[in-house]
Amino acid sequence: MTHAYATPRFVSQVPIRFAHCDPAGIIFFPQYLVLFNGLVEDWFNRALGVPYADMVAQGRTGLPIVHLECDFRAITRMGETVDFGLRLARLGNRSLTLAVDCTGADGELRVAATKVLVFTDLQTHKAIAVPAHIRAAMERWMSE
Amino acid sequence: MTHAYATPRFVSQVPIRFAHCDPAGIIFFPQYLVLFNGLVEDWFNRALGVPYADMVAQGRTGLPIVHLECDFRAITRMGETVDFGLRLARLGNRSLTLAVDCTGADGELRVAATKVLVFTDLQTHKAIAVPAHIRAAMERWMSE
Amino acid sequence: MTHAYATPRFVSQVPIRFAHCDPAGIIFFPQYLVLFNGLVEDWFNRALGVPYADMVAQGRTGLPIVHLECDFRAITRMGETVDFGLRLARLGNRSLTLAVDCTGADGELRVAATKVLVFTDLQTHKAIAVPAHIRAAMERWMSE
Amino acid sequence: MTHAYATPRFVSQVPIRFAHCDPAGIIFFPQYLVLFNGLVEDWFNRALGVPYADMVAQGRTGLPIVHLECDFRAITRMGETVDFGLRLARLGNRSLTLAVDCTGADGELRVAATKVLVFTDLQTHKAIAVPAHIRAAMERWMSE
Repeated sequence: MTHAYATPRFVSQVPIRFAHCDPAGIIFFPQYLVLFNGLVEDWFNRALGVPYADMVAQGRTGLPIVHLECDFRAITRMGETVDFGLRLARLGNRSLTLAVDCTGADGELRVAATKVLVFTDLQTHKAIAVPAHIRAAMERWMSE
Repeated sequence: MTHAYATPRFVSQVPIRFAHCDPAGIIFFPQYLVLFNGLVEDWFNRALGVPYADMVAQGRTGLPIVHLECDFRAITRMGETVDFGLRLARLGNRSLTLAVDCTGADGELRVAATKVLVFTDLQTHKAIAVPAHIRAAMERWMSE
Repeated sequence: MTHAYATPRFVSQVPIRFAHCDPAGIIFFPQYLVLFNGLVEDWFNRALGVPYADMVAQGRTGLPIVHLECDFRAITRMGETVDFGLRLARLGNRSLTLAVDCTGADGELRVAATKVLVFTDLQTHKAIAVPAHIRAAMERWMSE
Repeated sequence: MTHAYATPRFVSQVPIRFAHCDPAGIIFFPQYLVLFNGLVEDWFNRALGVPYADMVAQGRTGLPIVHLECDFRAITRMGETVDFGLRLARLGNRSLTLAVDCTGADGELRVAATKVLVFTDLQTHKAIAVPAHIRAAMERWMSE
């Protein structure tokens, strides 16, 4: 799993709080997945111009995960502020593949992950085509 | 439970995410408590100049809650950005009382809460005196 | 806040896991609120004979909290199995008041809390009367 | 990722609660990872006879994840009781590979995952050899 994509990288900074950490004093790993989920929301809201909450609540469109791969390379401690990065690796008809990472302020890669997400109708939980306005916004995040 | 304190109010803005919300589409109430905990951290880090994570990890000083009262007045929905506010209501020998709130961008009070926290030694979990440098920093947040 | 009710006490045993605990090695306090929420679900499902998930998902009836008071008396450590207890303290037209507790296997009271919950219509988030079949089931949990 | 192992499968049943679910009314996917973590604890406590909390708190031995792969095949709804299954796929010098799953009461595979965990010293966060008594207990879970 290498992240040598030529595509632009969206970054959101996150302070690692007491609430993220476990009795070992480091991030409890499912919290990385919660934070990656927040990263996708930030990308929709700030970069794509597609309000994520409206897509879910009004549009009744979901974006569940179908495949996840994560390498946990180094620990992250309570009190650090880290970068969460996102690149669009692939845009399919109904799905997208994101390469996401958590990187320390020292540049150390802590977690590298690949997420495959699928657009769904929240009434039926069936896959649907990527909505046209979202596809248009995402295409600007593909490599040339 | 009224919050008509003359003391200064520390505010931190929080976007309400998918991960905070429940099948009713609104904040799952224990998340308010997680967010109030983050608010106390922000107050320590940004306003008091006392790094919260260092206090816990290096100083082995804890700040557990001993009493909590909350009024949930109105719902908060996914996608809102809300203000979390904090006032120091009382500073005792070993404890402090905080009046915290969650307020919508429309000025509507969503949650008002009072938290009593106690400083403890994390080896013994016994109460200890408020550390002197923290007391000095907090006194600036008391009313004149 | 004393819990000297003559009403029956519903009890659910819970193992305290790594995921419930914080860098101090004890339950992160918002997790008590998550676990009290689960206790209310267990009471509905096992004692009242009212499937909680169906009430929410099919019935579109919610049961949000409007008032909470908690005393945190003693710590609970990772690895303990504790009792979560519930008593119905008051049943109103649209609300109910529950006295809940977390008690160690050694009989030590760890947390005592009072929760006021209100039935709502999940379309409008407005309060509604306690549904008749739920009221009938709850009345068996009132003191004689 | 197929799970056609000849090794024994450890199973723990879990009720899916309101607190596990998101505004789409289904399990919020990081909760699967929290629940898989609980499954590993249950395996240690119930099957291996190694109290997980003592290993962490007294033994200062951690078991962080270094690699994770998940396929999310079907949704799980609030109110279901599902089986979480675990098989030991590989036992190395310092690591173990677990094949875990979430399976509905209807037999439908919801999530299949592979986790690679490493034993660490919680003072240094460095990898250590699998402790001898844990290795002995785990070997009974390998295929013949």
